[in-house]
Amino acid sequence: MEQEYASTLLETAVNELSRLPGIGRKTALRLALHILRQDEKYGIELGEAIINLRNGIRYCTTCHNISETDTCPICSNPSRDASTVCVVESVKDVMSFENTRQFNGLYHVLGGVISPMDGIGPDQLEIESLVERVANGGVKEVILALSATMEGETTNFYIYRRLGTLPVKITQLARGVSVGNEIEYTDEITLGRSLLNRTLFSESFNQHLQ
Amino acid sequence: MEQEYASTLLETAVNELSRLPGIGRKTALRLALHILRQDEKYGIELGEAIINLRNGIRYCTTCHNISETDTCPICSNPSRDASTVCVVESVKDVMSFENTRQFNGLYHVLGGVISPMDGIGPDQLEIESLVERVANGGVKEVILALSATMEGETTNFYIYRRLGTLPVKITQLARGVSVGNEIEYTDEITLGRSLLNRTLFSESFNQHLQ
Repeated sequence: MEQEYASTLLETAVNELSRLPGIGRKTALRLALHILRQDEKYGIELGEAIINLRNGIRYCTTCHNISETDTCPICSNPSRDASTVCVVESVKDVMSFENTRQFNGLYHVLGGVISPMDGIGPDQLEIESLVERVANGGVKEVILALSATMEGETTNFYIYRRLGTLPVKITQLARGVSVGNEIEYTDEITLGRSLLNRTLFSESFNQHLQ
Repeated sequence: MEQEYASTLLETAVNELSRLPGIGRKTALRLALHILRQDEKYGIELGEAIINLRNGIRYCTTCHNISETDTCPICSNPSRDASTVCVVESVKDVMSFENTRQFNGLYHVLGGVISPMDGIGPDQLEIESLVERVANGGVKEVILALSATMEGETTNFYIYRRLGTLPVKITQLARGVSVGNEIEYTDEITLGRSLLNRTLFSESFNQHLQ
């Protein structure tokens, strides 16, 4: 039976909230009633934060990360190494790599990976702009940091071929046993790769101390 | 490690979204990035819907249900039976009872139940206004429709005592086996109550047909 709301304002808010991922109509109603139970200030601040987010955020013209300016703070930071470009799927991945504090180069956000099943081809991704960026010179290394899935590997290979003629070193993230994971539960392909690409114990020991 | 956001607008939106119940910082970030990926229109509409909700909704001065006017559409509907008042915990419960389409009386929203553990006493609930409403006359029956929990029963009993001297019939929701539930998984107290309050089969048959 169709839920009836006492108010069209409530109904509109529930409609809009339930368009968020993972939020159905029941949760949306719970959220809306929660907002009503809070200080009046909170609902206004939440609404304004969303509108400001939507109005204020644009994409960096160089790396396609989100930014409040034409060039994002990472690309415009002179202390970062502009000769190394880490290619990632999404804005969220940029945050994840930034959180590691292990990378001082720049990024290039593709906006996804090639996935024929989802109708995503190379043209919908920021691959052309990556090729241009490398062709313009100054980039010595491109790190492919896409998911270790079929789609990610396909995209890696496509980019590798597109950059093939340009004088740039192309690397990819190490494949291996995840830190904290047990060997027993690690799949065989990963185990095989981790064996082939084994590293000197003394080196990993030093990395640990960093 | 503290998550770093590329933008203060994003950080503010994540902060506000993560104050919603059941939404942590990771989910809030996912929602914010989702909003950014959608049409510009959507973020604006969502934000405005929340602000309009917060600005436009008030509480009915009679029954304390949410309303866009001083008296809610239920209380101001002349075709509803003003002599029967159903006492419920929350605005959500009003919607649930309205969805049954079995009730044509009015409501009284308490705003919770008495719960000393959560520091909620009778003074924080709309009990005084219920007593006044009944004392003003015109109400023939008060239906106690609170949760069948310790707190609900306590509140039922408190209201029963407060209304004790007034000439009004006080009823409560039937306790029994939930429709669709198996006897095997129904607790003994409910089974006992359902046995004591058994109804004529021919009557329940007629209710089924309604």
